[in-house]
Amino acid sequence: MRETMIVVHERPRLNDPIFIEGLPGIGLVGKLAAEHLIQELNAKKFADLYSPHFMHQVLVRKDSTVELMRNEFYYWKNENGRDLIIITGDTQVPPTDSYGHFEVVGKMLDFVAEFGAKEIITMGGFQVPELQGEPKVLVSFTDLETKEEYKPILEGLPVLFREDEGGAIVGAAGLLLGIGKLRGMRGACFLGESLGYIVDAKAAKAVLQVVAKVLGIEVDMSALDERAKETEEILRKVQEMQRAMLEQEMPQQGEEEDRGYL
Amino acid sequence: MRETMIVVHERPRLNDPIFIEGLPGIGLVGKLAAEHLIQELNAKKFADLYSPHFMHQVLVRKDSTVELMRNEFYYWKNENGRDLIIITGDTQVPPTDSYGHFEVVGKMLDFVAEFGAKEIITMGGFQVPELQGEPKVLVSFTDLETKEEYKPILEGLPVLFREDEGGAIVGAAGLLLGIGKLRGMRGACFLGESLGYIVDAKAAKAVLQVVAKVLGIEVDMSALDERAKETEEILRKVQEMQRAMLEQEMPQQGEEEDRGYL
Amino acid sequence: MRETMIVVHERPRLNDPIFIEGLPGIGLVGKLAAEHLIQELNAKKFADLYSPHFMHQVLVRKDSTVELMRNEFYYWKNENGRDLIIITGDTQVPPTDSYGHFEVVGKMLDFVAEFGAKEIITMGGFQVPELQGEPKVLVSFTDLETKEEYKPILEGLPVLFREDEGGAIVGAAGLLLGIGKLRGMRGACFLGESLGYIVDAKAAKAVLQVVAKVLGIEVDMSALDERAKETEEILRKVQEMQRAMLEQEMPQQGEEEDRGYL
Amino acid sequence: MRETMIVVHERPRLNDPIFIEGLPGIGLVGKLAAEHLIQELNAKKFADLYSPHFMHQVLVRKDSTVELMRNEFYYWKNENGRDLIIITGDTQVPPTDSYGHFEVVGKMLDFVAEFGAKEIITMGGFQVPELQGEPKVLVSFTDLETKEEYKPILEGLPVLFREDEGGAIVGAAGLLLGIGKLRGMRGACFLGESLGYIVDAKAAKAVLQVVAKVLGIEVDMSALDERAKETEEILRKVQEMQRAMLEQEMPQQGEEEDRGYL
Repeated sequence: MRETMIVVHERPRLNDPIFIEGLPGIGLVGKLAAEHLIQELNAKKFADLYSPHFMHQVLVRKDSTVELMRNEFYYWKNENGRDLIIITGDTQVPPTDSYGHFEVVGKMLDFVAEFGAKEIITMGGFQVPELQGEPKVLVSFTDLETKEEYKPILEGLPVLFREDEGGAIVGAAGLLLGIGKLRGMRGACFLGESLGYIVDAKAAKAVLQVVAKVLGIEVDMSALDERAKETEEILRKVQEMQRAMLEQEMPQQGEEEDRGYL
Repeated sequence: MRETMIVVHERPRLNDPIFIEGLPGIGLVGKLAAEHLIQELNAKKFADLYSPHFMHQVLVRKDSTVELMRNEFYYWKNENGRDLIIITGDTQVPPTDSYGHFEVVGKMLDFVAEFGAKEIITMGGFQVPELQGEPKVLVSFTDLETKEEYKPILEGLPVLFREDEGGAIVGAAGLLLGIGKLRGMRGACFLGESLGYIVDAKAAKAVLQVVAKVLGIEVDMSALDERAKETEEILRKVQEMQRAMLEQEMPQQGEEEDRGYL
Repeated sequence: MRETMIVVHERPRLNDPIFIEGLPGIGLVGKLAAEHLIQELNAKKFADLYSPHFMHQVLVRKDSTVELMRNEFYYWKNENGRDLIIITGDTQVPPTDSYGHFEVVGKMLDFVAEFGAKEIITMGGFQVPELQGEPKVLVSFTDLETKEEYKPILEGLPVLFREDEGGAIVGAAGLLLGIGKLRGMRGACFLGESLGYIVDAKAAKAVLQVVAKVLGIEVDMSALDERAKETEEILRKVQEMQRAMLEQEMPQQGEEEDRGYL
Repeated sequence: MRETMIVVHERPRLNDPIFIEGLPGIGLVGKLAAEHLIQELNAKKFADLYSPHFMHQVLVRKDSTVELMRNEFYYWKNENGRDLIIITGDTQVPPTDSYGHFEVVGKMLDFVAEFGAKEIITMGGFQVPELQGEPKVLVSFTDLETKEEYKPILEGLPVLFREDEGGAIVGAAGLLLGIGKLRGMRGACFLGESLGYIVDAKAAKAVLQVVAKVLGIEVDMSALDERAKETEEILRKVQEMQRAMLEQEMPQQGEEEDRGYL
């Protein structure tokens, strides 16, 4: 295998579909959001993407079968409006391989263009050192016209329009918009604030609530709520641990370190 | 040289051959098993694979000649059933070059397909922190149908069907099944439990006994037994050393560490 | 996207243009100089260069839109002489990807050749451990003939002809001359002495004054002067800090180090 | 530039030429030997090799001109026998880019084959922890037949036939023989024992004396002798320093180390 390839299982006819991305990244926010959306909408898988730029390994499943790492395309027929194509998966290209990222994202865009997709929504996490209250959702756009169209829809939601000039969106969540724009596509990126080192269902819920509003669809959040509760529980424990560590005295820490060396 | 290439010395006619892989990896388990199989069956070499993704060096032989690093294909004509193609070799692509792994494994599969191979068995080691009794053999499959076919053959053997969801099989042992599956091939992976930092003939023997059963052939294990005895001897010494180290007191260890700094 | 690509917005007719490069590097000297030149000449952007060898990310702008990392081509029509093509941008290929550097620089040269460019001037910083007086500008050339032509123009300016045999010019500032020379192009490289770890407007001004002289144009330096003043202020503070650190005693430093371990 | 390229200045007719390689490596042994050979034979440069796999930089010369890193081909017309093609240069592909090494060496062999070269001699250093007497020269061959042909010529010379099974020859000195062999070429590799961290003219002289004997030519070694004397002087100083360090007491070393941390 010398090139990213897509195995197509079905070629659905889609109505002006919006392409939604949620792949692994900070706090697994995008992946959780996309998987929940797929599950709640009962979206149907229609293609798999494999790449020689993904890690050279297979993953084992619970039933003792193995599978190359891959990304998966789902579609959802919307009776009341535009259809959706959703991509999620096991992995992104490793961060040391910029070239591979560009190749994979280019193939994704080639593929969804075949189904008429011209609008892209990407989802992910935005790492913050600490959370103040509920996680906010940071938004950015391919262009100013798209921003103006989204503005009224986003009114009243817990979103922050990014103004951090020179800030970066790394990986597929950024490149899909960047490369898409060069091809005349448009869209927005939604990143949920996250401490980053947990499976952050709280941030995923925040992102998905905003995206559902944008899509004009209802998404039952109860399963994600449950996962979010677990997340919150983990967060509380992490914070307790951190507090406990700060209360320890220097001498004790010195001992810890010595033991660490042995 | 800009692409993986295969130099073919002979083009044997093979009867529905099974493709068996044993390349260097954890504890050299796969390589030992494949080499022993080749030796005992008196299998014949018919092709060499060279790749610009292997290390940029030649290896010196005892007779002062040099050779590019390579993988070697052997075949064995089975009078009582299906023939075998066995691959072993000096090296795999370095772990930093995922792309190279995919290219090399793709070429391997292209090549064995020319001889009609549709089934793949890969062999290797599975690193465990400690061994309890004899090493077990972990098994996984390309698909559920193949699993069902193998099940009765594996009954009574010291195998564990993998259920560690999200666990990985890195390198050729995994990719051959993963990419093969995309091409309509099927097969299984057999990994022998190993402490990983030795040339682990004990694990290789465990794997080969299971694979011989699967292939329905007899393999004389006495040479491997001898090697396994050496391995066991090494293991005993390592364990003694570890026990001795644990019995040492903290102060002494502190001194060791200090000396380590000078 | 699998290759460096250039999106052309306009195809100006240019008069024997000189190609001037100022991309990010040591002290951002080249980028500052190029951006100032573009601003003062009111040069017009006519093309964008994107590359799969750039970092796999988009940059956020103050207005919440995003953009792939890119390099930008500008042109300036000179009423009194030769026109200019100026390139600046967000980034260069990361230093771990030599191949990408060669690809990108090759495409730049292909592109400017379409507009008749045969002469190249590259700008950047040259890291020195300390500055003595005003920063000097180090000059080197594609060939001896070009050197002889530049010599009288550079007379009296604060330039040093490089004689450090085996010294290197890394990245676009060097490769444009090196690859250009293979294609029959010629030119010079101007590097301003810089401490390297600041946005060094002082060095950029030094470089631009020399380059303006070479181009026979007047460039108002007042905006850069202001930026340079800020730089000088920062420099003074850095030097004070360094002096303060050197005056500290050994014991104290030892304590610092211990704390650093915890 | 997307591929290794060779700029040819002249196309000499050569008589069954031997291709001799001496590129930078351990102790610069190969490069020194090749440069000395070129100088003493007054060999003529006829081609330059450039590669996008070399470092992305130009080198500055004493006369303020710059040059891409490159390898250089020279030829020498032998009135009494077979002609020579000699390659030396600024650099090899960095060790992190195996693929680049294979590409560059493949192009070298393509090129010398155009001039009828079928035999290859590579030169380099072999790092040893300490030298006992004069440096020996380690020899290896593409094949046993070539070894038998070289044997009588090497009799009485300070050479060691390598028997370190699994030992490696890294870079062009190894790959030229390994890839050459796949193309029906033959040859030998001569590595001079070296401490490795100096410009080792002593080892270069040892290698060149053996190679000159093989080629049946006389090479005046006086210039290399002088360089070798300097090397020996440096060696003596290094050894004195090492002895002095070993005589120092532990406490003092402890202090050294502390200072090293500050």
